[in-house]
Amino acid sequence: MHGVLSGEKVIVTGSEADSFEFRGYGRKKREGVKGEREYKLKLSLEEAAFLLEAGKIVIKKDKESELTLEDFFKHALGIYPNFGARYIVYKDLKERGYVVQPGKVDFWLYPRGAKPGAKPARHFIRILSEREFLSMKELGAILVLARNMRKEPIIAVVDDESDIIYYEVKEAKFDVIEKQEEQEAVKREGSGKGKTFLFVDKVVLWDEVLAVKLYKNDFYGNLTKEKRLLLSLVEAAYLIKKGLLELSFEQFVEHATTIESDFMDKYAVYEDLRDKGLILKTGFKFGSHFRVYKATNQKHSRDLIHVLPEEHVFSMPELARAIRLAHGVKKRMIFSFKEGEEIRYIDIGRMKL
Amino acid sequence: MHGVLSGEKVIVTGSEADSFEFRGYGRKKREGVKGEREYKLKLSLEEAAFLLEAGKIVIKKDKESELTLEDFFKHALGIYPNFGARYIVYKDLKERGYVVQPGKVDFWLYPRGAKPGAKPARHFIRILSEREFLSMKELGAILVLARNMRKEPIIAVVDDESDIIYYEVKEAKFDVIEKQEEQEAVKREGSGKGKTFLFVDKVVLWDEVLAVKLYKNDFYGNLTKEKRLLLSLVEAAYLIKKGLLELSFEQFVEHATTIESDFMDKYAVYEDLRDKGLILKTGFKFGSHFRVYKATNQKHSRDLIHVLPEEHVFSMPELARAIRLAHGVKKRMIFSFKEGEEIRYIDIGRMKL
Repeated sequence: MHGVLSGEKVIVTGSEADSFEFRGYGRKKREGVKGEREYKLKLSLEEAAFLLEAGKIVIKKDKESELTLEDFFKHALGIYPNFGARYIVYKDLKERGYVVQPGKVDFWLYPRGAKPGAKPARHFIRILSEREFLSMKELGAILVLARNMRKEPIIAVVDDESDIIYYEVKEAKFDVIEKQEEQEAVKREGSGKGKTFLFVDKVVLWDEVLAVKLYKNDFYGNLTKEKRLLLSLVEAAYLIKKGLLELSFEQFVEHATTIESDFMDKYAVYEDLRDKGLILKTGFKFGSHFRVYKATNQKHSRDLIHVLPEEHVFSMPELARAIRLAHGVKKRMIFSFKEGEEIRYIDIGRMKL
Repeated sequence: MHGVLSGEKVIVTGSEADSFEFRGYGRKKREGVKGEREYKLKLSLEEAAFLLEAGKIVIKKDKESELTLEDFFKHALGIYPNFGARYIVYKDLKERGYVVQPGKVDFWLYPRGAKPGAKPARHFIRILSEREFLSMKELGAILVLARNMRKEPIIAVVDDESDIIYYEVKEAKFDVIEKQEEQEAVKREGSGKGKTFLFVDKVVLWDEVLAVKLYKNDFYGNLTKEKRLLLSLVEAAYLIKKGLLELSFEQFVEHATTIESDFMDKYAVYEDLRDKGLILKTGFKFGSHFRVYKATNQKHSRDLIHVLPEEHVFSMPELARAIRLAHGVKKRMIFSFKEGEEIRYIDIGRMKL
């Protein structure tokens, strides 16, 4: 079979066009003036390279002599600097029966055996190599695009061994838990605001009755043998805001920010999810800011949340490490950032394709 | 019992000194002029706080009125800004029968039930809170100190929940594997240098015989169905240096460095360990640069290696995430950096104390 290289396509004409199309390659277009219309099949560079590597096509450029696979790769790299990774991903998916077409964000992915055009693509794929970077802003933009186009985004990372990891990216949803009015109850029953002592990055609550209640009802802090409650900075700030501790919120935040410059970012997430009725504890053992429980009687947390600035740029090993760890302990890995006044939560998980 | 606060010590005199010392608190010193010598027991601030919290001591400052626990903490925080974390670690170890004394790097740790002074300390402990930072340089310095003092270093990290994770820090040792002269054999049998094609961040080796040998004998690259070998940049550079591929080492390194600015740092580690007979593959799935095998027939790699610049500064969640992940897959987590011309390998692992 024969094709002619033309920019980012390889054109096949005549009866061969039908045969390729039948096997799921390329897109057929009718071209030419009336009466002389001809069907042309346009193969993507990945499709053409795949057929060329398998020896199923002969490709010429401007009717010159036959292109070798090496010549062809050189041409493709001139068009897509990431053609190496693109081709590795294309080949992997194609060999496993998926239909893949070049698209706005690298590729469209169609269900197995589908004909492009007959059914809409379900996913789009952003391709990266192990050594590339991905910004939080781009992740956010990918999700906006996905919402507008009603597609599910996939990130495919090609590692140094040419293995591919597929990640699915989603806006994280949280179930809002009906509040049991527990905090209100604690407040009513308590004898005024709790007396505290600031221990640099911990707050010690001395009031035994309040300490035990906050710990048992809502899993705040860490209760010592002596029935004192050691609160973290975010926990203390939240309880101060709820009027339970005898400290000024503004002054406390000022103090906390001197200890931890991104305190307010972390606090905003803590408050947002505590207000939804969820329980947040430190995720430090898992290398994240928070682990999230749905109820005090839950033995294992469901989510890990890491709070990052909007300007954060992920290296691929950083992303891989966080997600792999969360996966290993059966939790969702959620990255959170502030976009204007809105807090966004992005859930990234390994995907079996 | 009674003590007097004096800077970073609490002094107990008279017969009470003996009783405390008997129970493993403080260090006794003979003081005063001849004939009027008196034994004084010096308690560390952590020991004193522990006894004060348990109601076993009354502490005065300059013969003033009794200090409350809160007053005492305030004084201690003025001396050690990290007294919060110090006290939490002291209490944890003390309650589990260890003997702890303030030392050059935060604490000395003695075996359970030992008398300080009677036996030498086995470990020293550097204490950090979840939100502090630790530089690669300090890690290196800790290991030098450990070697000079013949102690084993421990890093104790206190998280936001006042839980403590103990890490042991070691200079990583690698077994040197006797070379089977395989590469030499490959070279002799091969018909000249392998023909390659540069695919941006991959090198494709077209020579089928050489490709299969390198893959099967020494686990280089990834062999495609078409018997082409896809080599990573470090693999290719190493094979070029060994004279197996038809490329110039200098030119190749220049190219690789434009793709990956820290290429030479990674390459130096790759070469060092490959020369020791070890097999290195990408550790990307585990969020690290390399995974290390002792032999081609080993199913699981033993080590993960992450290469960092000497100027790198770890956040504690970053360290926790890497070590926890390695621990979960039963591998050593090794951080590597270049100190002058020497490559150093630091093995950090979770420790049960």
